[in-house]
Amino acid sequence: MTISPFDHPLLSSLLGDEETARHFSVEAEIAAMLAFEGALVEAEAESGAIAKDAAAAIVSTLSSFRPDTALLRAGVAKDGVMVPELVRQIRAAVAEPHGASVHFGATSQDVIDTALVLRLKPVVEHLGLLLTENIVRFAALEQRFGGRALTGMTRMQPAIPIQVSDRVTAWRAPLQRHQERLSEQSGRLLAVQFGGAAGTLDRLGDKAQAVRAALAARLGLGDAPQWHSQRDTLADFASWLSLVAGSLGKFGQDIALMAQDGAEIELSGGGGSSAMPHKQNPVKAEALVALARFNATQLCGIHQAVVHELERSGAAWTLEWLLLPQMVVATAASLRLAAELAGQIESLGR
Amino acid sequence: MTISPFDHPLLSSLLGDEETARHFSVEAEIAAMLAFEGALVEAEAESGAIAKDAAAAIVSTLSSFRPDTALLRAGVAKDGVMVPELVRQIRAAVAEPHGASVHFGATSQDVIDTALVLRLKPVVEHLGLLLTENIVRFAALEQRFGGRALTGMTRMQPAIPIQVSDRVTAWRAPLQRHQERLSEQSGRLLAVQFGGAAGTLDRLGDKAQAVRAALAARLGLGDAPQWHSQRDTLADFASWLSLVAGSLGKFGQDIALMAQDGAEIELSGGGGSSAMPHKQNPVKAEALVALARFNATQLCGIHQAVVHELERSGAAWTLEWLLLPQMVVATAASLRLAAELAGQIESLGR
Amino acid sequence: MTISPFDHPLLSSLLGDEETARHFSVEAEIAAMLAFEGALVEAEAESGAIAKDAAAAIVSTLSSFRPDTALLRAGVAKDGVMVPELVRQIRAAVAEPHGASVHFGATSQDVIDTALVLRLKPVVEHLGLLLTENIVRFAALEQRFGGRALTGMTRMQPAIPIQVSDRVTAWRAPLQRHQERLSEQSGRLLAVQFGGAAGTLDRLGDKAQAVRAALAARLGLGDAPQWHSQRDTLADFASWLSLVAGSLGKFGQDIALMAQDGAEIELSGGGGSSAMPHKQNPVKAEALVALARFNATQLCGIHQAVVHELERSGAAWTLEWLLLPQMVVATAASLRLAAELAGQIESLGR
Amino acid sequence: MTISPFDHPLLSSLLGDEETARHFSVEAEIAAMLAFEGALVEAEAESGAIAKDAAAAIVSTLSSFRPDTALLRAGVAKDGVMVPELVRQIRAAVAEPHGASVHFGATSQDVIDTALVLRLKPVVEHLGLLLTENIVRFAALEQRFGGRALTGMTRMQPAIPIQVSDRVTAWRAPLQRHQERLSEQSGRLLAVQFGGAAGTLDRLGDKAQAVRAALAARLGLGDAPQWHSQRDTLADFASWLSLVAGSLGKFGQDIALMAQDGAEIELSGGGGSSAMPHKQNPVKAEALVALARFNATQLCGIHQAVVHELERSGAAWTLEWLLLPQMVVATAASLRLAAELAGQIESLGR
Repeated sequence: MTISPFDHPLLSSLLGDEETARHFSVEAEIAAMLAFEGALVEAEAESGAIAKDAAAAIVSTLSSFRPDTALLRAGVAKDGVMVPELVRQIRAAVAEPHGASVHFGATSQDVIDTALVLRLKPVVEHLGLLLTENIVRFAALEQRFGGRALTGMTRMQPAIPIQVSDRVTAWRAPLQRHQERLSEQSGRLLAVQFGGAAGTLDRLGDKAQAVRAALAARLGLGDAPQWHSQRDTLADFASWLSLVAGSLGKFGQDIALMAQDGAEIELSGGGGSSAMPHKQNPVKAEALVALARFNATQLCGIHQAVVHELERSGAAWTLEWLLLPQMVVATAASLRLAAELAGQIESLGR
Repeated sequence: MTISPFDHPLLSSLLGDEETARHFSVEAEIAAMLAFEGALVEAEAESGAIAKDAAAAIVSTLSSFRPDTALLRAGVAKDGVMVPELVRQIRAAVAEPHGASVHFGATSQDVIDTALVLRLKPVVEHLGLLLTENIVRFAALEQRFGGRALTGMTRMQPAIPIQVSDRVTAWRAPLQRHQERLSEQSGRLLAVQFGGAAGTLDRLGDKAQAVRAALAARLGLGDAPQWHSQRDTLADFASWLSLVAGSLGKFGQDIALMAQDGAEIELSGGGGSSAMPHKQNPVKAEALVALARFNATQLCGIHQAVVHELERSGAAWTLEWLLLPQMVVATAASLRLAAELAGQIESLGR
Repeated sequence: MTISPFDHPLLSSLLGDEETARHFSVEAEIAAMLAFEGALVEAEAESGAIAKDAAAAIVSTLSSFRPDTALLRAGVAKDGVMVPELVRQIRAAVAEPHGASVHFGATSQDVIDTALVLRLKPVVEHLGLLLTENIVRFAALEQRFGGRALTGMTRMQPAIPIQVSDRVTAWRAPLQRHQERLSEQSGRLLAVQFGGAAGTLDRLGDKAQAVRAALAARLGLGDAPQWHSQRDTLADFASWLSLVAGSLGKFGQDIALMAQDGAEIELSGGGGSSAMPHKQNPVKAEALVALARFNATQLCGIHQAVVHELERSGAAWTLEWLLLPQMVVATAASLRLAAELAGQIESLGR
Repeated sequence: MTISPFDHPLLSSLLGDEETARHFSVEAEIAAMLAFEGALVEAEAESGAIAKDAAAAIVSTLSSFRPDTALLRAGVAKDGVMVPELVRQIRAAVAEPHGASVHFGATSQDVIDTALVLRLKPVVEHLGLLLTENIVRFAALEQRFGGRALTGMTRMQPAIPIQVSDRVTAWRAPLQRHQERLSEQSGRLLAVQFGGAAGTLDRLGDKAQAVRAALAARLGLGDAPQWHSQRDTLADFASWLSLVAGSLGKFGQDIALMAQDGAEIELSGGGGSSAMPHKQNPVKAEALVALARFNATQLCGIHQAVVHELERSGAAWTLEWLLLPQMVVATAASLRLAAELAGQIESLGR
């Protein structure tokens, strides 16, 4: 099934991004969940919350554990999340007497939210690299063509002459601010979620904070109090994703407008038409606009999901799952396309 | 890759719908495109626009044609659509002297838009059946529990006693209006798109209208002037999808609220928790709320795409692809979940 | 205070519409509420639910009643709606023994929803007239310039020559479908809301349906069962508003794109610049795009509000108030601007 | 006219905020524009770009200048912005020989964007104070009731016992992160926009940067290169506004849910009903949910407006005006209502 173009075997070549998409495969998701369960028992053994041999047995089992995905699928249909069934399977694989120590003190949301953040970590790094690549590309355009003349266009009308560097700066400068923003928010974003049944780590007593800190350290994430019903860090990240795609959408729109008569730009590698062989469609420029508007649209839903009722909202949480992975991939695709499009600019200005 | 929960091997068991999803597989999409190309040459042969033996040769080739999807994927990356490459492959398979008659007078958008509408036809039928099923379910609840008492709740506060039938009516009545709306709009929606390079059927001269009418008839679609840059029928359908999911979201929200203390509702089959075995989470009710908010969110983007510039907007069109299939599947999933949830109501009122 | 451009003394000259805006003044709102209260007691007296002299006394008082708006304002701050305080004032003005018959059997939502629908009735009529005006304008353009040549533009690139009539048809045809849609939905939209405390008309016993029918007839609205928690007719109307603005946004976008080099269009009355006296900015065309995107944005919120919990949702209902009036005025402004802009087209094609 | 509840004489008592709203009055807007024009000529005189006596004459005129608003209104209808007409009036008031020095080197967007930022400065300060007030209120609730028991609610079902402090922390902690975010972004936000006709300060030659720096200093804003077509700082601020309202919407939703049966909360000052005198509706809690969903909705449009074409987009810019002021006031109202609601909590937990 390929309902989303990001998953579509054909359309994903234009609109998707393999590097980020692989972090949202079921395999990557389950691997992150198992990493959580393994790090958890190790952290708990370290602080004495569970027995050391229980942790060792569980970690050993996890190293070769392969879930029964048909049962996981049935579990999601019933429970809304795969975790209860996954934990049941792991417990069965570990067997007595250590099975009961699996997932000790944790709840589904701990696993799912932390498994998401674990995967967002390399995603954030990748997006940062793509941002830098785009900045470098724009700087190169500026260096190569910056002194040439362009017709400044205000309100869709010719205004006064400007330089190529003026327009390219308007593409580059926001990306540099996006770098600042990412570095400001990534510490808040990349934090472990660990709260237990209702966020109070009730099963862990006075060892709660030590276990959480050790868990975070083992996973390479920041340590922070439970945030399961506080979705602002995810929503803030989604806003950032939309800002990035929006800035690149402006670049795409500018290119498409300039390409109309082609007097001030020369592009290579335009798309062909099934009816008009002479055409060179600015396909990547248009895709940038589409992805920008896509992310702006999804952002509304992510912010709706900040209204996350009481200790856990199945509705608001599920809504995030429907939106956030696609925003991530859309942003990565935007960055990839923008870099490619910048590389297709053979000439700018006159 | 499984970026969208609708495509996700596990999450789709809750949030997806197999019956509608299969219309959005690449296989179904290509099959619909080939149906378009076949019906087109037959319609053109019928009116003398191309030779009868050309049409016969093409139809014969199409019957066993299997595209090279790796090349289609590369084609999308370059052209933004798969059609130029698909047509190239069909032409090569048909070979001289009839290859040039493939896709005669058509353009990519004709293929893609009509192939979409061809698949929306069974989708509309399926959604209509699901609507009816839900209405029947609600009527059954009304018959079984209608006379019992409920605490009317206004502004989240106990108001005055009402009857179960009062609340169930508020779930059922909108669905009946949605049936009316679907029947009003489906004629406008299920119409062929055929316009050629820029919507004027320039290659077909005075045979244009006859070919279009014959094409529509062969495909079982309505005949209508080209609408390639007029996206109101799709946006109107998307609004309908969101209305349906919204009404069912209200049902889900009501069930989740009633299930809090469970005094006036008894549900079977609730979801389990990994931390609290005693819980019966109203998973389907919550999913209905999530899907309603999802569709409401996407609707914004679909309406943004009505601003479709000039004779064809690559940006606005691509944006539709990113949104509409998911709205369709979300709505079908909502209808499926609502019917299931209605079936899990063991008792209502007191 | 002028937070919204639709209310702004200056910006409303571009973005507002006086004819529809006046239906959303406090004065118009209160007048509609008083019309409801008057028609209600007359309908109730007719069916014997209250005494005829009570109705006469109330109607007589209402004819000269002027509320204390400072107290109404305080009432809204406390109650979230003005109705409890308004009813209190009316009762005090009517005085004993008939005061208690004021608002008999009704609740705030009946007053507010019906007062909205009462004002939407002339709004719908006005929008219908503006639609027709636009269709006439486009037909005139077609008649005047239809046979001239234009460069068909697909994916922002020159495609093949088309005729002016091809492009103008793409502006006109959706408006004709919007007329059909409005006529299909207006019967569902323009219906009285009357349900009492929790929608059951509990105070009126077996006279409930007769009173409601008489009330509807007196107000010139359709009679329908209570729909207070079923917001689909309003959301459907909002979708229609967004479709209309979207189609006109496409027209505006097309004009702005054509005006860039001005080779195929000549516009009079463009906007001036404070820095470049030579410029003729396509201000109305740009405003059409802005209003289309505005309405598409608001639509998301209106559809969120379809998730209207139980018998009355203060949250979802309030959300509608924040969105719907602005969508109405934005649509009216779009229709006004589009007609004006069509009138500024001095030449089209070549 | 009162199309927006934020401008509505009655509804604004619940949904508006006077302190922020006054910054969006026409009077405040024009005052900020005149401050820009005054500071500009002083900065230009300082660097020798215009004559010192010209600046003195202009500043003197501005000190008592009152525009003809009827002409400004007509100017907006024609030009899309009030600035060309405003500048014309100021020039006429200054008269020869200094009139031509008014607005020297500037363009409408410089005036409008900088006048916005000038008013956002006190707005940001006010919102910061309101945030602090809310944090203090929540801390007080925590201190007073923190140790009491609450039923933890996950997925709308009773989970395990938690403490009041657990739930209150989930209300307070996001607000503290919002403080951090505001301080991180306010430097980027509160920067002067000054670019002239197409952003190049073409009229000022080598004095351009000195004038801009002096202008910024006089206005108490940050100095930054022109950002007229880079809308990310405004969109980022809008995201922040939506995050704040979202977090408070979660608080409101929680309160409304707890108030249903009232077992664990006691509220004073609930809203009355016109039909049920016994009711105490959680009006402010519901309004918080409505405002959160309102801001989440608007955010989509603001991010659409980041696609701001070429050197100035009339469409994208106008779209911001339709959205941002309302988001600001909605956020201020949310903060005000949340503080009031926190103050109405008489008892929490058991």
